[in-house]
Amino acid sequence: MMDFSHASTRAQELDANDSLAALRSNFDIPHGTYYFDGNSLGPLTFRSRDVLHHTIEHEWRERLIRSWNEDWLAMPQRVGNAIAPLIGAAPDTVICADNTSINLSKALHAAVALRPGRSEIVVDINNFPTDIYIAQSVADQHGLTLVAVTADKIAESISERTAVVTATHVDYRSAHILPAELITKTAHEHGALMVWDLAHTAGAVPISLSDLDADFAVGCGYKYLNGGPGAPAFIYVSPRLLNESSQPLQGWWGHEAPFAFTVDYTPAAGISRFLTGTANVLSMKSLEASLEMFRGVSMADLRQKSVGVTSFFIELFDEFLASRGFTLGSPRDPDVRGSHVALGNPNGKALVEAMAEEGIIADFRPPDLMRFGFAPLYNSYADVVTLVKYLSSH
Amino acid sequence: MMDFSHASTRAQELDANDSLAALRSNFDIPHGTYYFDGNSLGPLTFRSRDVLHHTIEHEWRERLIRSWNEDWLAMPQRVGNAIAPLIGAAPDTVICADNTSINLSKALHAAVALRPGRSEIVVDINNFPTDIYIAQSVADQHGLTLVAVTADKIAESISERTAVVTATHVDYRSAHILPAELITKTAHEHGALMVWDLAHTAGAVPISLSDLDADFAVGCGYKYLNGGPGAPAFIYVSPRLLNESSQPLQGWWGHEAPFAFTVDYTPAAGISRFLTGTANVLSMKSLEASLEMFRGVSMADLRQKSVGVTSFFIELFDEFLASRGFTLGSPRDPDVRGSHVALGNPNGKALVEAMAEEGIIADFRPPDLMRFGFAPLYNSYADVVTLVKYLSSH
Repeated sequence: MMDFSHASTRAQELDANDSLAALRSNFDIPHGTYYFDGNSLGPLTFRSRDVLHHTIEHEWRERLIRSWNEDWLAMPQRVGNAIAPLIGAAPDTVICADNTSINLSKALHAAVALRPGRSEIVVDINNFPTDIYIAQSVADQHGLTLVAVTADKIAESISERTAVVTATHVDYRSAHILPAELITKTAHEHGALMVWDLAHTAGAVPISLSDLDADFAVGCGYKYLNGGPGAPAFIYVSPRLLNESSQPLQGWWGHEAPFAFTVDYTPAAGISRFLTGTANVLSMKSLEASLEMFRGVSMADLRQKSVGVTSFFIELFDEFLASRGFTLGSPRDPDVRGSHVALGNPNGKALVEAMAEEGIIADFRPPDLMRFGFAPLYNSYADVVTLVKYLSSH
Repeated sequence: MMDFSHASTRAQELDANDSLAALRSNFDIPHGTYYFDGNSLGPLTFRSRDVLHHTIEHEWRERLIRSWNEDWLAMPQRVGNAIAPLIGAAPDTVICADNTSINLSKALHAAVALRPGRSEIVVDINNFPTDIYIAQSVADQHGLTLVAVTADKIAESISERTAVVTATHVDYRSAHILPAELITKTAHEHGALMVWDLAHTAGAVPISLSDLDADFAVGCGYKYLNGGPGAPAFIYVSPRLLNESSQPLQGWWGHEAPFAFTVDYTPAAGISRFLTGTANVLSMKSLEASLEMFRGVSMADLRQKSVGVTSFFIELFDEFLASRGFTLGSPRDPDVRGSHVALGNPNGKALVEAMAEEGIIADFRPPDLMRFGFAPLYNSYADVVTLVKYLSSH
């Protein structure tokens, strides 16, 4: 039997000094559940439950169609503006819509249209696969070549042939943070445009799209933003490009006057032209509710907590797990590590399934990676000890 | 003061003989609300409320990420199969996803790819505008010409140049039912493909995509299907075309093995290749719940009720409204009339707004059309009398 008394005492001290500890009370995590999968699906918040109840009972049941004018029509812009400060974006440059795959398609089409005559799209070959599939499709549609390289080769693969570069800021398997400044700058030096996927960034890892001068970005509502299962995604477009950008899914919600019902498509001014059709209200409401938790929380504090918890986990990995068949699948250097930690284990899939039976929830990515997401809003240092205790005994 | 006693007596008799009358008890329509806008947003059902509660409290809160495997991943196919019998489609030819604009884009891209060398897309110029915007975009991307003509000119505009024809089966303004058989047959005679939009059809107006031998169809989940605000849409692909069709929004959910996370996109067999990314669970759950109401209800009975109610409304229009500044904006012939009736009135917009204050809810479409949706699952003949009484006194 290993001795966790020292680790538990340290966790107690760290939790006592955690300035974000009170935020955990926003989440309705079931008693006995230890949740390390906020990088895949954030837990239910009390606020989302309340807002969904109000949406169902008041807005849908009672106000019915009137709710479109009273509230829902303005929601994609409103939710976009609630996300904007979390990713360092200016007001009215982010909008909530559709899913990440669709938004990436819009961004890449828009980017390619702004760089006619160029022949390549550069993509991280370890990107989340849907990003590669979508990039391949956009490349095929425009007769471009997809150049898929590992993250460390992205910058050197950018040339005057490159129309657009796309990568995910935080690698979905390793949590490795890509050098966003270098890649964006290199793209711009060669006249190419940069599309960042912030799926594992928004809500957990600081980024400033404004400071980066990024061209486009997309991201996900259901991971660290806690929007709920299948919450809609978001898209960012640089204010430099907004009014010269177009995207092919030009549905009525992106029209400058959707309720004029004219035959000709005229894009809305600004970010609204990146909308397609009707927003899924219930899912977007749940996301809007959870975003309120981030008000008044600094990204610096979130980052400090995230680094604290992941570093503590790696410390305990070294002490209790490294000798028991686990390997570290994430960077040791916190400066290039996102908010989850991956451990390799040949028995990883079965172990993740067995853990879930005990209420300790993580996820698995092929071939052998167990992923543990540490969400700065609710995971505690004590959670980490519980997790390592379990892993060390199996 | 006009005398409605005869009309009220007739409504009582008709409601007493309505074999679908009991279905109204599925809906939680607020006391004092008379709802004639199911063609825009169906009301809350008790079943949707219960299922949403279960989804939030059990599936999201308690089971968390495990619900993907336990339930959610299979939902798009399951909901598609619940919609299929309502539109005369075979099992596994319909899938629930995204919104109507996005699904139309997929269908048109797929159709154009199946008809290389052809130069035109034919569209109903009075189609709901988003369909025209999307068709224009697909035409532009493929270098095709968009031929936009009135419904009565569609058949004669189809030629050997036509790659694909798209139209909405029931006109969103007039409720005019287009001759689906003639148009589909004409398209096929010229080697073109047919994409039907069933936004105002599904759940209220019978159609058999199998009998029509239609190629593609799309439709909406939040109108007569009562899925809730922004419920996801659906797409149908003929079994003839399923495995030779492709669509450019090739996200990971359309992959044959989404959780293998391979770099190359291989489309799933069958209708699943028309998925993009993550489904919005809450909205789709609400739709799935409301679809259960249709089990055991024949489309013939729904149609009989729909025709009965709209015909009764037109009778009362003739008696009480025609002389008071209202004009009929829908066909008199029930064979070519869908489930809503439009009335022209120069003061229509203000009148619709004033009615809503009294709990009598319809909607308005420019320039002067008041639309009254009569949903066969919940609107009664007595509702019609209440509506006409109000209109005749203003």
